[in-house]
Amino acid sequence: MFNGVLGFVMALAIIMISTKLCGMLARRFGLPQVLGYIVAGLLVGPAIFGMFGVSLIGFGESNVNSFVALDEFSLDGHDNFTVLDVFSKIGVILIMFSAGLETNMEDLKKTGLIATLIAIAGVSIPLILGLLISIPFIANGLIAGFDNVIQGVFVGTILTATSVAITVSVLKELGKINTRIGTTVVSAAIIDDVIGMVVLSVVTSLGTPVASDATGFEWFKSQWWGTVIMIIAFFVVAIGAGIGIHYLFKWMDRQWPNHHRLPILGLAICFSYSFLAEKIFGVADITGAYRAGVIIATVKRPAVYTEERIEVNNYMIFGPVFFASIGINMNFEGLTGWIILLSILFVLVGLLGKIIGCGVVVKANKGSLREAAIAGIGMMARGEVALIVTNKGMEAGIIPGDFMIMTVLLILFSSLLTPILLKKAFNGHTEQAPEIKEPEAVPATANEE
Amino acid sequence: MFNGVLGFVMALAIIMISTKLCGMLARRFGLPQVLGYIVAGLLVGPAIFGMFGVSLIGFGESNVNSFVALDEFSLDGHDNFTVLDVFSKIGVILIMFSAGLETNMEDLKKTGLIATLIAIAGVSIPLILGLLISIPFIANGLIAGFDNVIQGVFVGTILTATSVAITVSVLKELGKINTRIGTTVVSAAIIDDVIGMVVLSVVTSLGTPVASDATGFEWFKSQWWGTVIMIIAFFVVAIGAGIGIHYLFKWMDRQWPNHHRLPILGLAICFSYSFLAEKIFGVADITGAYRAGVIIATVKRPAVYTEERIEVNNYMIFGPVFFASIGINMNFEGLTGWIILLSILFVLVGLLGKIIGCGVVVKANKGSLREAAIAGIGMMARGEVALIVTNKGMEAGIIPGDFMIMTVLLILFSSLLTPILLKKAFNGHTEQAPEIKEPEAVPATANEE
Repeated sequence: MFNGVLGFVMALAIIMISTKLCGMLARRFGLPQVLGYIVAGLLVGPAIFGMFGVSLIGFGESNVNSFVALDEFSLDGHDNFTVLDVFSKIGVILIMFSAGLETNMEDLKKTGLIATLIAIAGVSIPLILGLLISIPFIANGLIAGFDNVIQGVFVGTILTATSVAITVSVLKELGKINTRIGTTVVSAAIIDDVIGMVVLSVVTSLGTPVASDATGFEWFKSQWWGTVIMIIAFFVVAIGAGIGIHYLFKWMDRQWPNHHRLPILGLAICFSYSFLAEKIFGVADITGAYRAGVIIATVKRPAVYTEERIEVNNYMIFGPVFFASIGINMNFEGLTGWIILLSILFVLVGLLGKIIGCGVVVKANKGSLREAAIAGIGMMARGEVALIVTNKGMEAGIIPGDFMIMTVLLILFSSLLTPILLKKAFNGHTEQAPEIKEPEAVPATANEE
Repeated sequence: MFNGVLGFVMALAIIMISTKLCGMLARRFGLPQVLGYIVAGLLVGPAIFGMFGVSLIGFGESNVNSFVALDEFSLDGHDNFTVLDVFSKIGVILIMFSAGLETNMEDLKKTGLIATLIAIAGVSIPLILGLLISIPFIANGLIAGFDNVIQGVFVGTILTATSVAITVSVLKELGKINTRIGTTVVSAAIIDDVIGMVVLSVVTSLGTPVASDATGFEWFKSQWWGTVIMIIAFFVVAIGAGIGIHYLFKWMDRQWPNHHRLPILGLAICFSYSFLAEKIFGVADITGAYRAGVIIATVKRPAVYTEERIEVNNYMIFGPVFFASIGINMNFEGLTGWIILLSILFVLVGLLGKIIGCGVVVKANKGSLREAAIAGIGMMARGEVALIVTNKGMEAGIIPGDFMIMTVLLILFSSLLTPILLKKAFNGHTEQAPEIKEPEAVPATANEE
């Protein structure tokens, strides 16, 4: 078993190759690349072959023989972390930073009423349904560690995210991206993500368990009203500093246009925001990263340039590592019948919640049945944000680690069904897409090959 | 003191900002950026402010109060490493990979005899001088941990590297890069680096201390003849696999030109080569990285594309981290008068050894005194390769950690002196750089009206 610094470097090489191959395979089957990345992690990590006692990448303190063993550092005796967790964290920070950088505030303000209503339904209906299906399990203590209502709210929070990318690619393929319903759905998905981020921040802050012996500042943050104050404080500080950052970038862009100083500063700001958000304000680090992106997005050219440079770092090393580490960290040992049952319910309400919730909104606003179906199915797609939210919940100790399976299954089914159902729904749709340029501000994911 | 995953992310932000600022400052003073990066590390790490008990970035197990503390992973109870060491290692691997990718085998084969002779002198004279100045210290046990002749050879090895970059930039500035002496010096510097890499591999393999209870394969590798066999074996395997890699890249480049698959594969190969080189063959990991670069360099377009993509990763995060970590890991506590004396001698022979050694070669081959001076001074410049070699020696336990100061001082003085002396040497140089011939304008006829 090789470990240490070079052992980890070799682990990186293994992850890079396996994720690339599995990602390509996933696309062959019309599935999102990120599912391939997770499968790669399942294959090279101990989840599957560990049952036979071997794996390519494993953990130092384990009885599985691995080619490369990840050393675990013990933080105060309990929370362990590995170097893989650091790369993984940077990966998720970069994904959220990218998403923030691509947020076009101008476009968002111009979003129509219907899209906003669809988004609100797309957040609230799944949230409520997720909580509802969790309650029986929580009330009867059917799953270990799943016993607090706020945990049920988090399960609902996972369901709020929509994957814009899958929907957009199907719409483009069908040539329907510029139709009235097409642009409405895309706008709704974007707003859905923004609202979802806010919900996530609040739920994470409220849901993170705190040590019972917390004193002073820590105690303050553990009270619900303290949490709310800190959330507000975070946004106030973030936006306040953001104004300064906006003018700094404007000035730097005039002095040194497209100089690599800007992405470096941008990335440093992003890392700082992530750190401060979580460690000082108790808001999720990914919220900090996203906010940093949104702030820098207000100065267009540096934002585009920064995003290009970040993308390279992201797709080459950190992005795939994040998703692979989900697979590497998975284990099926704690899987009980109750968890499987919850997973089935989760997937069902995940699929139906959006279709019905968003469809109803469209119908209630004088849309046709077809348009309602398109909106509902288009919003049903799930992608990496759902994984990121789930991962955050596990990391913060809000939900048990076994719940990752539910999210993976949801993504699997929604990715398979969305294109099929969307094409059916568009069958016979008569509005021709006008020949104009496509909307730019589409949050990209790692979906392109 | 913040530590853990997010603590490290904050440390990265601190390093990115401080290295950028200090790098800019260094250039203001005409010094190489890497010196600025090291100073940044000295400033944010415990080396300087630690004496007052505080630092921005520090180590977990230390009595210095730091804002961010780096957790140390304990390998088998002795060799500790931090996440910073992992990023640092990736940084140096990427630097060497880049250098390999830029190696143009065709051009190298066309290098003239004189340039080759200059390079040989540029490697051997400093090597011998480095050993000579070390012997009194080794023989009399004047420096702790410095007691083996092979360690003196390593000191000489540090002196073999020349920085092509500094020399090239001065030559360009003077418009002399295309003169006969200019091209000769640049070629010599490149060959010097290549020969130096081979010397480094051999000396590192021979010089790395081995556990006295080594058995089997480990024992085999610890014998000098076993080491030599493993070095040869490495090059055989590397080149053998390299042929396959060459054709793989050629094929991939035809299938998917400029697709980002290629740099990802290239990077994975680089990481694998680094791991195998060190862990299996006992050859330095950086040799593996360099070799991976040289192999991929044989397929031109993917090599250029890979290099561009790697550069982004490198200058944004990993490169500066490597040099900053040199400063962060430095401490002046073990500095004795003998080490300072050795440093002075080191810098002196470092400067003079190249000037005299290379200058004599030119003079002996019917060069003028001026040309001899230009060759000598041009080869005197030192840069990051010297740092990389020193860092490798410290990491492998071949030389004491305090020796880093010698190299930093050498780089400082050679960077200050090379431009000044080179300009003086060129004063009155009459050969003009040949003008690129422009197509002759057709003279206007007298018939125009």
